[in-house]
Amino acid sequence: MNSAVLDMLKWDEQGLVPAIAQDADSHEILMMAWMNRDALQLTMEKQQAVYWSRSRQKLWFKGEESGHVQEVQEIRIDCDADVVLLQVKQIGGIACHTGRKRCFFRVLSNGEWQEDEAILKDPTEIYQ
Amino acid sequence: MNSAVLDMLKWDEQGLVPAIAQDADSHEILMMAWMNRDALQLTMEKQQAVYWSRSRQKLWFKGEESGHVQEVQEIRIDCDADVVLLQVKQIGGIACHTGRKRCFFRVLSNGEWQEDEAILKDPTEIYQ
Repeated sequence: MNSAVLDMLKWDEQGLVPAIAQDADSHEILMMAWMNRDALQLTMEKQQAVYWSRSRQKLWFKGEESGHVQEVQEIRIDCDADVVLLQVKQIGGIACHTGRKRCFFRVLSNGEWQEDEAILKDPTEIYQ
Repeated sequence: MNSAVLDMLKWDEQGLVPAIAQDADSHEILMMAWMNRDALQLTMEKQQAVYWSRSRQKLWFKGEESGHVQEVQEIRIDCDADVVLLQVKQIGGIACHTGRKRCFFRVLSNGEWQEDEAILKDPTEIYQ
C-alpha cells in the first residue's frame, strides 16, 4: 500500500473520517460510519469495508459477526479529502444492525420521523 | 416546527451531525457537510439545504453565493439518529465549490487518487 494514498486524507483530531457506504446496484445509501487510517488501509487491502467503532474503540470488520460483509467495488474521496465514499455489494442485503436493508429507515413525514423499512431479519437471529 | 423532531437527533459535542446530500434523480452522492440544530430546522422550513460551515463557524445557506441551491425533496435520519440524509434537486447541476457536479471526484485507481469529473464551470466565475 502506497502510504501517500492514506496521507492524502485529512484525518480529524481523533484520526477519523466519515465513510459513506452506497449500494452499488440500488444506489441507496446504506450507512455512514467512521474510518481511521488502519481501517481505510484494511478496506483497500481486503476490498471489504472495515470501519472504526467509536463506541467500542476498535476496528470493526463489517459483517464479522453478522456475515453481512460489504464487498468494496470503488473508493472515492471528496474535494476536502475528509470524507470517504464506498460503492459496495451488501452481502445478505442487510446493512443495519436493526435487521433492515439500510440504516436510513426514518423519513420526515407530516412533521414526524416515520419508519418505512421492514425488518428483514430479527437482530437476535443476526447476532447470536 | 415540532421541536421533538430536532430533539430526536444525537448532536455531537460540537452540536453537529453529518449531512449527506444525494441527487434525487441520478442518485449520486453530491457532498457531505455538517448541520447544527438551526441548520436542520431551516432546511426543514425552507426545503432548501442549510449547513453549518465549520471553517467559517456560521450558517451556510447552500447556493447563497453560487446560486447552486439544493432543493430538498426528502429528509432521513439513520438508526443512531446521528446522520442526516437529504434527497435534493441540485440547481445548476454543480454541488462542488471546485465547479464539479459532485465533491467525490477522486477515485482510487491503480493505487492512486485519480480525478474523473470534469470542471463544469470555473470557480472564479461561480464566486465573483
